[in-house]
Amino acid sequence: MAAISAQDLLAQLQWRYATKEFDPAASIPADTWDALEQSLVLTPSSFGLQPWKFLVLTDPAKKEALLAHSWNQRQVVDCSHFVVFAAPSAIGNDTVQSWIDCLASSRDVPAESLHGYQRVMEGFLNQLDEQQRLAWAHRQIYIALGQLMTSAALLGVDACPMEGIVPAEYDRVLALSSRNLTTSVACALGYRADHDKHALLPKARFHRSEVIEHHA
Amino acid sequence: MAAISAQDLLAQLQWRYATKEFDPAASIPADTWDALEQSLVLTPSSFGLQPWKFLVLTDPAKKEALLAHSWNQRQVVDCSHFVVFAAPSAIGNDTVQSWIDCLASSRDVPAESLHGYQRVMEGFLNQLDEQQRLAWAHRQIYIALGQLMTSAALLGVDACPMEGIVPAEYDRVLALSSRNLTTSVACALGYRADHDKHALLPKARFHRSEVIEHHA
Repeated sequence: MAAISAQDLLAQLQWRYATKEFDPAASIPADTWDALEQSLVLTPSSFGLQPWKFLVLTDPAKKEALLAHSWNQRQVVDCSHFVVFAAPSAIGNDTVQSWIDCLASSRDVPAESLHGYQRVMEGFLNQLDEQQRLAWAHRQIYIALGQLMTSAALLGVDACPMEGIVPAEYDRVLALSSRNLTTSVACALGYRADHDKHALLPKARFHRSEVIEHHA
Repeated sequence: MAAISAQDLLAQLQWRYATKEFDPAASIPADTWDALEQSLVLTPSSFGLQPWKFLVLTDPAKKEALLAHSWNQRQVVDCSHFVVFAAPSAIGNDTVQSWIDCLASSRDVPAESLHGYQRVMEGFLNQLDEQQRLAWAHRQIYIALGQLMTSAALLGVDACPMEGIVPAEYDRVLALSSRNLTTSVACALGYRADHDKHALLPKARFHRSEVIEHHA
């Protein structure tokens, strides 16, 4: 059953935009942020493998340390919550084992009963080289980015996805490399500043007929 | 302003699952599908470049032709609407020019006034080789996949994301290669069959503390 009308959904997707200026005084309330974290946790992924970590930065000093590695985009420091999406740089049978253990526990079945599924996942990952596995993980992470931005829009929270960052520097500042993690993308969340003129620009997209093709 | 409560949002994200068996008799109503197409069109992307095409298959014969190239997963044929996400296999200055033209037209400004922005985008793309540009496009497409799945859940529509497909065969069957397009991923949408026992499995995710890390 629908939880919202199509009109209301689209109104929120029209309302959102890549926020250029956040109101540094506006914090996301704890219960709203809690829901956004849960939307991240609930993100679907290929095989359910969830190849990700989400770092949530609210500490001003830590956000400040990333500013220089973010093309000096002020959203990093002015937002309420800054999320860094990290991918595991080594994905393999251990990753699959963790997931099988989680699945067995949540379904209350022995891990051995999921052996066939485990072999399928291992087979999938083992046919990819390291770089391809990482590319696969990055793609899954972008599902999470999509789900987070859509969820934020629905809850009236502004967001700015940020690819304009230097992943290697993020990895260094956040000490990710030693933990076999590597930065994928980031997203600033909070509330738009009243004076952000980007909020007033008409939303620009290719015409629907240019991107959607019906095979009916 | 929020358009939905946090509780209702999370209830829908809990309700959704990767649907294994669709009810082949259940069609998505036209107005609901229209909203889902608009959610695809409105997807945010890096620089706003929208490197994607969405093929919407409802023709049974066309869906059937993809079944053998989809690990015989019946969702392809039993769903109401099957979406194939395709990326442009050649992304370059022409792509940027199309976007600049669209942007200028929607803002009612001369394209020349966006020259600086155009150069930034060209610079970004030109530092990537062909394979990296394609990987970048695939990532953007996964934002669209995320936004589509979240939007579907909110409208009470079931979905199954499908990576288990053979992109090269999809490209052949859908005649994408000659149009400089290549298949990225697919998503089946419709309504779950009453007897799909996967709907009853408890949702399994890594514990929140395993995937979210606070730097407060």
